[in-house]
Amino acid sequence: MNAKEFALKQHEEWNGKIEVISRAKLETPEDLAVAYTPGVAEPCLKIAEDVDLSYKYTRRHNMVAVVTDGSAVLGLGDIGPEAGMPVMEGKCVLFKEFGDVDAFPLCIRSNDVDEIVNTVRLLAGSFGGVNLEDISAPRCFEIERKLKECCDIPIFHDDQHGTAVVTAAAMLNALKLTGRKLEEIKVVTSGAGAAGIAIIKLLVSLGLKTVIMCDRKGAIYEGRGDLNAEKEEMAKISNRGMEKGSLADVLKGADVFIGVSAPGTVTEEMVKTMAPNPILFPMANPVPEIMPDLAKAAGAAVVGTGRSDFPNQINNVLAFPGIFRGALDVRAKDINDEMKVAAAYAIAGLIDEKELTPDYIIPNPFDKRVAKAVAQAVAKAARDTGVSRI
Amino acid sequence: MNAKEFALKQHEEWNGKIEVISRAKLETPEDLAVAYTPGVAEPCLKIAEDVDLSYKYTRRHNMVAVVTDGSAVLGLGDIGPEAGMPVMEGKCVLFKEFGDVDAFPLCIRSNDVDEIVNTVRLLAGSFGGVNLEDISAPRCFEIERKLKECCDIPIFHDDQHGTAVVTAAAMLNALKLTGRKLEEIKVVTSGAGAAGIAIIKLLVSLGLKTVIMCDRKGAIYEGRGDLNAEKEEMAKISNRGMEKGSLADVLKGADVFIGVSAPGTVTEEMVKTMAPNPILFPMANPVPEIMPDLAKAAGAAVVGTGRSDFPNQINNVLAFPGIFRGALDVRAKDINDEMKVAAAYAIAGLIDEKELTPDYIIPNPFDKRVAKAVAQAVAKAARDTGVSRI
Repeated sequence: MNAKEFALKQHEEWNGKIEVISRAKLETPEDLAVAYTPGVAEPCLKIAEDVDLSYKYTRRHNMVAVVTDGSAVLGLGDIGPEAGMPVMEGKCVLFKEFGDVDAFPLCIRSNDVDEIVNTVRLLAGSFGGVNLEDISAPRCFEIERKLKECCDIPIFHDDQHGTAVVTAAAMLNALKLTGRKLEEIKVVTSGAGAAGIAIIKLLVSLGLKTVIMCDRKGAIYEGRGDLNAEKEEMAKISNRGMEKGSLADVLKGADVFIGVSAPGTVTEEMVKTMAPNPILFPMANPVPEIMPDLAKAAGAAVVGTGRSDFPNQINNVLAFPGIFRGALDVRAKDINDEMKVAAAYAIAGLIDEKELTPDYIIPNPFDKRVAKAVAQAVAKAARDTGVSRI
Repeated sequence: MNAKEFALKQHEEWNGKIEVISRAKLETPEDLAVAYTPGVAEPCLKIAEDVDLSYKYTRRHNMVAVVTDGSAVLGLGDIGPEAGMPVMEGKCVLFKEFGDVDAFPLCIRSNDVDEIVNTVRLLAGSFGGVNLEDISAPRCFEIERKLKECCDIPIFHDDQHGTAVVTAAAMLNALKLTGRKLEEIKVVTSGAGAAGIAIIKLLVSLGLKTVIMCDRKGAIYEGRGDLNAEKEEMAKISNRGMEKGSLADVLKGADVFIGVSAPGTVTEEMVKTMAPNPILFPMANPVPEIMPDLAKAAGAAVVGTGRSDFPNQINNVLAFPGIFRGALDVRAKDINDEMKVAAAYAIAGLIDEKELTPDYIIPNPFDKRVAKAVAQAVAKAARDTGVSRI
């Protein structure tokens, strides 16, 4: 049985990767009278008086909705809400195992921005937070923006911000290891979708000054004419030198390459044109923009990918469980930029300067310290920026 | 500490009565590669080819949404979605404990019929069934009707149909015990809301001919002029003798009283005007239309209430866990009248004719045989009526 067949068989045996269980004992009529009528009327009445008590008397304080429309699932594209469910259930399992967060998958049968926004908005009273997942760009930007406006709980699109936080963490350590400063380097991306844009926005907020984003048509620059609203916005804060041309053209002299695009986009020859000892994060999955051994042979000082079978896996699971754990712990009403920055520094900070090597710039996904450190840093940032409610 | 204080303290300690857990092992990178990327792509692709496989590879086959808008919670009225959550979590606990059904509470922040219908419709791909709960009449009728039209999974409003099934079960045995036939008796109700209407519809489908429903203004009859659409419909199938007057007026000579209204609606004197050895189901909660001891003193042969501290508790928990268990087991696309009738006969049939006494016409809620018997009967009825899919 090969790996694909095994995964299928395992899913059939699991018969669903999540389960809803009872925390209440229910063995006698007396138990029933407390957990259900008439006893249950008491917490109902308390919450009716003060809605915030829903965090005390119901599971809301620990419950996150994992929401998708199935339009951009893994690398599989628009496979629909039902077909997206195995990924969403998997995400819920990761939330529980790594962050002790209860997460429940909601796959929405619509690709319409307003229908998705309305569905989540109307359910916001049942959850302590919402993790948006695998929703295609550019709709994901609008959905997140609208939800942040109308909901009183944190809204977090993991494909954007989870990826950005972990990439930023890896970057901080890679720069430390190679003796660079974010303010002084040149970064080039391949990919200007949800993840690429979120990564660059976060790095800019951390101090990055010089960056060129590339899409399939090459460098993005102000006035290119064929840009959507999001790329247009990025064109205003990136590539101030107005460089034009292909990825290969603009990669020359760059210190860092970030790939969130497609396999084989970068060649050894291209790496050789970068600045000395370049940093490469080719994160296309499962096949990176350039394989790590080729990148190293061409001179790369540090390489990080999305894969578990190479060193330096840039894996979202390092971020989202701890970020939501921290946000829920202080009942945050938002996950803001300061909280994401705090999460990135917390992840990076788990590796001592003395421990840093080209093959160890980011903790292992199974490093038990990560979620706790991230949660503490995120909770503190939430308090410091006034978005915590306890 | 009194019972109310204890219930509150207990809810605080539970900190939510439900929890979402993982069914998948997740201890090594290899586990992660099966439950999440890249392994999870396989079930996704299978479901994308055939949506029905979502029942095989995800938890949908056992997952029910418990949906409310918080508009008619217990006897507490319109307390809002967050305040309704303790009841919905309690319902989910009952689903799990009695029917081994995973149930998840969704409390919707809207009282608008179409907003509620849309929300549930868009989420129908994530669930195997929907239990509507504590939604006020007459909106509950329209919401259920519209959802049944647009959803491919069972929609069941428990306040209507669960109550109807258990009341019908109790009725079947009470009639057996007192040597009556449904076709020959006169039934009078106090209450013509969601539960009252559903009870009478189900009894009529079982053979009941003579019935008068009363609301606060007395007997409902065709042409009364102040009836809403649902009561108007009932006026056409009940009270064919066009009796007018108060509950006391029309109760004279009745064999059966069914109360789904308010405490103290029925007096001993009224009971004495009923047919000899009448059957009374005063089910107002927590205080019945007439207390059982008073009803018996006035001549009642059988009394059933909604309370656990009297014999013959007419409790929905006898119905909904088994009904959904049976519907999910055959992947039913609907819960139709035949399935409800089958459930009522299954509950009633658990008590042998020889076992029947005035204090034992309906199984105890903790009788372990009930959910199983109901599930089997419901699954069979689903198969017989062609709404099963496996």
